[in-house]
Parts: sequence; structure tokens; C-alpha cells
Amino acid sequence: MVYITRIEHFNAAHKLFNPDWSREKNEEIFGKCANENWHGHNFELYVTVKGEPDKETGFVYDAKKLSTIIKEYVTDVLDHKNLNVDVEFMHGKICSIENLVVGIWEQLKNNLPASTQLHALKLYETPRIFVEYFGE
Amino acid sequence: MVYITRIEHFNAAHKLFNPDWSREKNEEIFGKCANENWHGHNFELYVTVKGEPDKETGFVYDAKKLSTIIKEYVTDVLDHKNLNVDVEFMHGKICSIENLVVGIWEQLKNNLPASTQLHALKLYETPRIFVEYFGE
Amino acid sequence: MVYITRIEHFNAAHKLFNPDWSREKNEEIFGKCANENWHGHNFELYVTVKGEPDKETGFVYDAKKLSTIIKEYVTDVLDHKNLNVDVEFMHGKICSIENLVVGIWEQLKNNLPASTQLHALKLYETPRIFVEYFGE
Amino acid sequence: MVYITRIEHFNAAHKLFNPDWSREKNEEIFGKCANENWHGHNFELYVTVKGEPDKETGFVYDAKKLSTIIKEYVTDVLDHKNLNVDVEFMHGKICSIENLVVGIWEQLKNNLPASTQLHALKLYETPRIFVEYFGE
Amino acid sequence: MVYITRIEHFNAAHKLFNPDWSREKNEEIFGKCANENWHGHNFELYVTVKGEPDKETGFVYDAKKLSTIIKEYVTDVLDHKNLNVDVEFMHGKICSIENLVVGIWEQLKNNLPASTQLHALKLYETPRIFVEYFGE
Amino acid sequence: MVYITRIEHFNAAHKLFNPDWSREKNEEIFGKCANENWHGHNFELYVTVKGEPDKETGFVYDAKKLSTIIKEYVTDVLDHKNLNVDVEFMHGKICSIENLVVGIWEQLKNNLPASTQLHALKLYETPRIFVEYFGE
Repeated sequence: MVYITRIEHFNAAHKLFNPDWSREKNEEIFGKCANENWHGHNFELYVTVKGEPDKETGFVYDAKKLSTIIKEYVTDVLDHKNLNVDVEFMHGKICSIENLVVGIWEQLKNNLPASTQLHALKLYETPRIFVEYFGE
Repeated sequence: MVYITRIEHFNAAHKLFNPDWSREKNEEIFGKCANENWHGHNFELYVTVKGEPDKETGFVYDAKKLSTIIKEYVTDVLDHKNLNVDVEFMHGKICSIENLVVGIWEQLKNNLPASTQLHALKLYETPRIFVEYFGE
Repeated sequence: MVYITRIEHFNAAHKLFNPDWSREKNEEIFGKCANENWHGHNFELYVTVKGEPDKETGFVYDAKKLSTIIKEYVTDVLDHKNLNVDVEFMHGKICSIENLVVGIWEQLKNNLPASTQLHALKLYETPRIFVEYFGE
Repeated sequence: MVYITRIEHFNAAHKLFNPDWSREKNEEIFGKCANENWHGHNFELYVTVKGEPDKETGFVYDAKKLSTIIKEYVTDVLDHKNLNVDVEFMHGKICSIENLVVGIWEQLKNNLPASTQLHALKLYETPRIFVEYFGE
Repeated sequence: MVYITRIEHFNAAHKLFNPDWSREKNEEIFGKCANENWHGHNFELYVTVKGEPDKETGFVYDAKKLSTIIKEYVTDVLDHKNLNVDVEFMHGKICSIENLVVGIWEQLKNNLPASTQLHALKLYETPRIFVEYFGE
Repeated sequence: MVYITRIEHFNAAHKLFNPDWSREKNEEIFGKCANENWHGHNFELYVTVKGEPDKETGFVYDAKKLSTIIKEYVTDVLDHKNLNVDVEFMHGKICSIENLVVGIWEQLKNNLPASTQLHALKLYETPRIFVEYFGE
């Protein structure tokens, strides 16, 4: 069993706010992240799949194809977008990095070939904060 | 003459658009960067000052004080903000990284001690794009 | 279950020596790391907690609060210090990075809210050496 | 149980090709990686061993000794080499990074002291692609 | 005057050898880099152009267009290639990184718009070795 | 004229203090950096030499030889040392990174071949602070 990881990049705007709360409560809980005019990040996404290397290709999964799938279902959807406004799969959710990584998992798991097992996602929001999700 | 550089970080939203142009022309020229709902970045700012090391302290300029000044006049003004909407010194300018670095220079040059010579700014917008400005 | 990691930085001096051994044996076993006048490092500490994202905030645990707790119980205690001399929780232990990461775990595990589960620590001593600890 | 990781570097040439296939099929499956005149990479290898810190040294395993063993059995064998042509343990295998990491594991597992448990290898082929192997 | 830099990546094989010398002399002078079966690297190329930000776009030069030009004239020519064998502009030259960066300059300077001034190239061969060239 | 840079690493302890001042004044001016029991850093040193590539080798200066000279005159002298106590060329100086980079320049300039022109040094003290020196 070998694990292969492809790293992709996207830039996006977002804000943290809960529509059930007052502006004051949003600012109290989310601080600067609640700025109503948005802020943004360079996100780094690590996508890890696992499997046995194929006898004929030596590949667990072709990293170029993996990149193409991530591009189609994730980074083309998120890059240079507003995560709260422009991204359908985040509608109705608090736009935290925790909810974002779970949303990306849902996008990917249904769009990888049946033979390819999605193992982990890692998502950097800043150089000092990242989340990981294993579908559990 | 020794050069000392302090690196600081901020996150912000922006978009590239020229208010004299139609939405179509903005999209033609600026592509994804013109998304009307904004996008954003983790910016890394390198501030370089130069001078002769002081005999008593060994410092060109105390890096902690430099950090405090950058924080007061730049990163507190830009961090978790919308560069087009929230930042006074960018009003009326296209919000490109080129114009941003010149704007940051103006903020800093008047707020450093007379004895400290601002030499260069470097500003990363993404891990693969940065600008530099020397005040010339 | 989502894992969120916050990275913090500290600088410190230390040396590797076993007080039960002669200076010669310390130098034989620990090499340059036994220099009696100390050496030092820029340490990078990764603190990972895990949990389910909160319905109202989208957070596993607020990364800013996590940073504040790491600062109070770890980096304020270690930053710009001599790990052998100045840090109470390392007294009587060989000041290896392995023992240091276990000591940091003990500091953190009792000072996080009961609802927050500490999952892992990763500690870089140089850009080419790091340790990990999971409390097991 | 503490995990300690040492990172080492090597540069090498390789190509992806399956000798049972025509040149056309190799190019169809492997794309640019099948260039018959080779291409190459700066590889970064992370070697992780695990154990309990020794009472007398504070070490799971001396990182300098670990570096020496990796050098003798892996990087001296691979550095500035052609992985397909010059490396005996890759003969008869497709020279993918997945097969390479498994081959490195075989080299290391028999050449570490009995008391040292090899836990994981991570191998970067480019800044955006890496594999991991746990011997399972 | 603002400087904007775009970073691009390519992987390639090469060797250092002087065809006027014996194999022994090549190995004496170039060491492991003379391996007749080639070795390779992940190269990082920094391309810096300079100018005044345009009033209407805020750009010195559109970073996306710069990327497209670098791709067409440099990275498509070098990526996944053998620098000695496959790259016409390196024929008859020792394939050192110094000669490579000068060759890349020649490729770029004639293929940028007349209004765009090429200022500098920086080329990393390994994480610890890079060259710079200013066309002088 | 091509510039080639070699990056080397060393770890060391130091403190900032002026022996002409009281302990209180040292703490007031240098803050945590004045800790009498020392602190330390992982230093990254960039050494840049310049020249025309040699016709026969393609080299401005052999990067391996440059590494050997830096090792002999700089990193062997500084690595795993106390900069204030163990390093002769820092005696009688405030042990700031500004004074350190000038001291390293003095070590190198007399120990490079006459044909090799030392152009610049860059020295990182932390990931967010570095100095540069050009011998002027």
C-alpha cells in the first residue's frame, strides 16, 4: 500500500459569520475574520490517494490525472472565487476551513475512479494554520 | 552599510477592476481576478532598511521596533481587510500588487525615524508572483 | 472528525549532556551537541487538536485561542530561553528534542478545554530533523 | 513512543517506460515522463523511525547515525545517478516514485539496528508530488 | 519603477562534461556531475521584468501573459528534457547552470514585448545552489 | 557576469548584551535577546560570488569548492558554538546579526581564490529576519 499526494493551489475570499447572530456577536466570536467586506487567502490543498502500485505502470494513480480531477471538481470551482457567495457546496454552512475541507472531500470522493481510494485531504489557510480530514 | 529585512504577513481580499470600463472589458483584461465578488491572498511583505550598525547596540535598526512600525502603519491597516473597500490609501487606484507596494512604501517612509533609511519592499501575492519597489 | 493544526515558533539554546557521564563520554556520544557553552535552534512547533466542527462556529477549536494557549504554556516558557537552565519542566532530563516534545505535551494536555482533544505534536529542531508525539 | 524523522536529499535522472510496450504506448501512458533521453528531479527523502527515548541519551535513535545509514544505503546509491540504469535495486521495475519508495524501504529495513523500528518513508519527486510508504 | 517576478518550474536531466577532455579528466573536474548516464534536477526559474505600472491596468506587465511567454519559449523547451541532448540552444556549450541561465535570457529577451524590460533571471538547481543573471 | 550562490546552515547560541551597560539597561534595550543564559538559532547563510563562466568548465566558481571553503572558514567555526564565547572573530563586538555578517565577510574575503569575487552575503537569523552585506 503506497500513498501518493498531489498539491494544488487556489486563491479565494471568504468571511466567517453566522447569519443567526447579530453583527456584534459575529465580531465577538470571529474577530477580524468577520469583516463584512471579506478577506482572503492563498489555499494549498494536499490530496492523498492510496493503493498498490500497478504492475504495468508502477502507478497507484497517475498524478497528472489526479491533478486534472482536482482541477475540474475543486480548484476551478474555488479559485479566484468568494467561498461564501460563489460556491454552491458551501451555501448554508459557516465558511470555516473545517467545513471547507469536508465540502472538498464530498466533491472528490464521487469523482475519482472506483479503483482509487481517497485517503486524506490537508488544507492550508495560512502558512501557520491547516486542517486535515480522512472522511471519518 | 548593512541591510536588515523584516518579513510580515497579512491576509486580504481584493479584485482587479477599472471603474471606467464595462464589466466585459474588466473580465477580458483581468480574467478571474475581476470576479465581482472578490478573491483574496495571503500576502508576505519584506521590509528592508539599511545603515551602519550602531556601535553600542550592533543594530542597523531594532527588528522588533521595525515590526511594530510595520504593524501600526501597514499590517493593522491591511490584515483581514478588503483592499479596494477598506483601505483609504488604495482608494481611486487599480488594486494591483504593483500599486499596493507603492502605497505601502508611502505609508512607511513617513513613519520611520529620520535616521532609518527605507531601502526596499518585496511583496508576495502568491507563492509564484511578487513585486519589488525601491522608491525610485 | 477534523484535525486542525496551529504552527508556532520559538528560539532557544540547549546542549545535550548526561550529568552522570564524564565530559569525554558526553563528547563521544553527543558530538558537537555537547558543546559546554551551548548552541541553539529556531524551533517550529505544530500542535494538532481534533474534533467535530461546531454547528454554530464551524470550528473544531478556534485557532486564535489555540495560539493563545500555546503561547501561555509553551512558547512564552521556551522562547529566547536556555532549555537546560531556564525551563523547569526539563530539569533532570536529557535535553533532547524527544524529551522536549514529551514535556510540551504534558504542558498542553492539562491546559486545553476538556472538550478539546490534543492529537499530535510535531517539533522541528532544524530544517532536516523533527519529532512527533501522539501521547502514547 | 516518539517518532523521529531525518530528511535527506538526492538528485537523479530517470524515465517512465515499460519495456513490454511500444514507444507510442509509453508516450501515450507516461506523456513527457517517457522522454527517451531522460529527465530528472531533486528528490527529498523523509525517513521516520520510532521508539521510546533512551534514558541515558534521550534519543530514540541518534539522528546523525540515522543520516549516516541513509547515506550509505540510499543516497550514495542514488545521488547523481540514473535510476533506471545505475541502480541495481530498480532493475526490472518501472521507475515510478511508488516503486522507488518501496525499493528504498527494502534497502533501509535490513540495515538499521535491530532495536530501531522503521516507521515511514516520504519521498518528494517535485514540490507538488510525494509518496509515503509504511511497509504494509 | 516597479519590479514584478514570476516563478516557473521545470524538471530536466543533464550532465557536466567537456567533450575535449578524457572521461578521467571530466570526472576529476566535475565529480558526480559527470556521471555519463546523466542525473537531473527540479529547476525553479524566477523571471523579473520592470517598468512603471500602467495607469489603466495597474500592471507593469500582466503576470499571466508573462507566464505564457516563459512557458512557450523556456519551460516547454526544457521541461522533462535532457538539457545536453534535447535543447538546441545548449548545443556546443558546457551544460552548467551558469550557461543555462544565459541561454534562457537569450530566449526571453527577444520574445517579450518591446515595452517590457527584462531585468533579472534567477535559477535554482538545488535548494542550496542558484545563479542570477542581469544581461550584463 | 553571472552570480552564483551557495546556501549553508549552522546552529549556534548567542545573546545580545553590551558589557558597558548594566543588566537592567541590557534588558531594556535588547529585551528577551539579553537573556543571560543564552538563546540560539538555526542560521542560513547565502554566499554569492560573481564572474564570467569559464570557457572550459562553464563555472563561475565550482559550487562544491565554494561549499568547502565556507565550511572551513565559517560553518566549522560557528556551528554548534556559542557566538559570544567560542568565536574569536566576534570577541569585543556586540553579537548582533549585523556584526556577525560583517565578521563572516572578513573570514571569507581573504580565503577565496584571487580570481573569485565575493559579491554578497545574506544571513537568516529566524524565518522572518535576515541581513545582507556587500562589503561596502
